Amino acid sequence: METLILHEYADSGNCYKIRLTAALLGLTLDRRHYDVLKGETRTPAFLATVNANGRIPVLQIGTRFLPESNAACVWLADRSALIPHDRFDHADMLRWMFWEQYSHEPNVATVRFWRTLVGEAALNDAQRAQIAGKVQAGKAALALMDDHLRGRRWMVGQAVSLADITLYAYTHVADQGGFRLSDYPAIQAWLARITALPGYVPITA
Amino acid sequence: METLILHEYADSGNCYKIRLTAALLGLTLDRRHYDVLKGETRTPAFLATVNANGRIPVLQIGTRFLPESNAACVWLADRSALIPHDRFDHADMLRWMFWEQYSHEPNVATVRFWRTLVGEAALNDAQRAQIAGKVQAGKAALALMDDHLRGRRWMVGQAVSLADITLYAYTHVADQGGFRLSDYPAIQAWLARITALPGYVPITA
Repeated sequence: METLILHEYADSGNCYKIRLTAALLGLTLDRRHYDVLKGETRTPAFLATVNANGRIPVLQIGTRFLPESNAACVWLADRSALIPHDRFDHADMLRWMFWEQYSHEPNVATVRFWRTLVGEAALNDAQRAQIAGKVQAGKAALALMDDHLRGRRWMVGQAVSLADITLYAYTHVADQGGFRLSDYPAIQAWLARITALPGYVPITA
Repeated sequence: METLILHEYADSGNCYKIRLTAALLGLTLDRRHYDVLKGETRTPAFLATVNANGRIPVLQIGTRFLPESNAACVWLADRSALIPHDRFDHADMLRWMFWEQYSHEPNVATVRFWRTLVGEAALNDAQRAQIAGKVQAGKAALALMDDHLRGRRWMVGQAVSLADITLYAYTHVADQGGFRLSDYPAIQAWLARITALPGYVPITA
């Protein structure tokens, strides 16, 4: 297989979900660190070579670059048990992954990023004006997951899939953004099932 | 095939991209209209049956419901030429579809929705505080597409794919949000290529 390099910022859940997918599949990734707080993903060299969008993570596959965390997870998990074969379940897995990027990450992850990594004192006015809305939307996203997981073991069908792995990344550290995971018992049971998967690695690894 | 019903709001680009995908594939969709401005996707019946997330579009496949526009397009286009077989191109198609939902739609589409369908006078303070940032981010998204399309016919590989169809939906009506498509010549040429596809239907159909 071609060399796999993860261009990343380790604390980012979007980067962690790629490391977790690789670990569950027994794949090895080389890792290149960029400090997003110092603008290291906005340099001319990064924009010209790694990602014109100025964001991490990017999965480098040989000489080709694949941005967008959930797309990288799909590339890694191609033909593995982490992607359902059934036509509906496959689309339903993607449904939760698109929902993760649209309704969960911009709220649960952004509030965590602003509060723990940037710091509220350093936010600009437009960011500060969005916090209350993002906290409310983040709680709604967690409540939706908790309702969905009541009586289910996994987000889609009967087996763990990339829907679980990609949603796990920011859900399990939601407390760091001020959300209370203890309010969501079905999520807590599901988090424990993921932690117990063979090959699991924590975000700090 | 099971009956396909699109639960939708016709002016939404997210709904249109599903109609366009179906039209290019020669598939027929029944259509159910909801007025999002009147809260018709937040009723107890809608939340309990169609989508607990209170959003359209939702593709109903027989008795099952599939929210998230891009996931619905993938279900429709399963095993068709609109989804690349090559492992990298397949993931790269999804990369642009995740980018569309994260970096394009929340800016290009939201500014259009606020300005033309809601009206600036009806926006709340938190929305108003975000307009300048969303206009800037929308322009950046269109510039990134324009750069990417210079010297290319399609977003991914050598053929039209769902990356093109899903990005077309809100790009071709970006002018309605105050963006100037005349500033992006490579996008304009690409829009014309999509309009020329056999089976193409406009957003007003």
